[in-house]
Amino acid sequence: MSTPGVVVFRYGHRPSRDKRVSTHLALVARAFGAREAWFDSIDSRLEEKVAQVNRVFGGKFSVKTGISWREAVEMAASMGFCTVHLTMYGVPLPQVIEELRRKENILVMVGGPKVPKAFYDLADYNVSLTNQPHSEVAALAVFLDWLYGGKEFSLKFEGGKVEIIPSERGKKVKVLR
Amino acid sequence: MSTPGVVVFRYGHRPSRDKRVSTHLALVARAFGAREAWFDSIDSRLEEKVAQVNRVFGGKFSVKTGISWREAVEMAASMGFCTVHLTMYGVPLPQVIEELRRKENILVMVGGPKVPKAFYDLADYNVSLTNQPHSEVAALAVFLDWLYGGKEFSLKFEGGKVEIIPSERGKKVKVLR
Repeated sequence: MSTPGVVVFRYGHRPSRDKRVSTHLALVARAFGAREAWFDSIDSRLEEKVAQVNRVFGGKFSVKTGISWREAVEMAASMGFCTVHLTMYGVPLPQVIEELRRKENILVMVGGPKVPKAFYDLADYNVSLTNQPHSEVAALAVFLDWLYGGKEFSLKFEGGKVEIIPSERGKKVKVLR
Repeated sequence: MSTPGVVVFRYGHRPSRDKRVSTHLALVARAFGAREAWFDSIDSRLEEKVAQVNRVFGGKFSVKTGISWREAVEMAASMGFCTVHLTMYGVPLPQVIEELRRKENILVMVGGPKVPKAFYDLADYNVSLTNQPHSEVAALAVFLDWLYGGKEFSLKFEGGKVEIIPSERGKKVKVLR
């Protein structure tokens, strides 16, 4: 069975204040099998940070910045993507996960407390990863883990410089080239 | 079947620089069913932030700050806790999850690139949430989701002021008192 292709859109990114949280979000999208992450504010530092991770650890994950939420939603619509807004106010993931797994492509929108009201109306699904406040980084990770049924543990990232060899103690790093 | 009680220990917390990431980590521990989170640096702002979330959303989740990693490990040992260090260098979670689910109590240690080498030796398990770099917040969330088999979606937090009512559109908040 094929699995949905995922693009993550992060609303409300502030390059100075959100540096670490947005980096975490982009790296989670990459490690858990999304294809791309889009951020609304232009941030070349973030793009370079992820490109650097690709160079070292492989893969073709792509970050694009400077995409407004309206552009993101329009692009997604024009490509026939299903849109999923992750929010603590939404429907619990277990109730919709089976439907979502059958989609071809999904735009996952993550924001924060201050997302535009329009998000809730535009999204095909408003989905909660618990109805408690916690973290958009955690919400995205658990969402992708469920969507893909744990495939993050078997993903291959080709073309990097190193590979981590799982180990009971210490750090084992294989240098590839 | 009973499930393990979990305490999360965060190594290398810097109250000014890590404000948001550490808050996310504490709130993830709370929302995903851990009992307590300990941080090595004293941080009354973080303690107050989580206490505020408890007052509004309920529950008895507790944050303690100013606990060194040696103290954390000694306390865990004296109480017979199993210690699990989350690290991208460790053994993939699927290989050990069944063993871990049978533990009575677990101290989950999360750090970052600069954890002391001793962590790898002291921990009963070094566990990876993929061997790719991403986020300790994401690693903790997915770890707890797997450990507890998705119980975060049915947890009850008693004694709060409000309850979020899951909704397909918009925000529904029930005021309890």
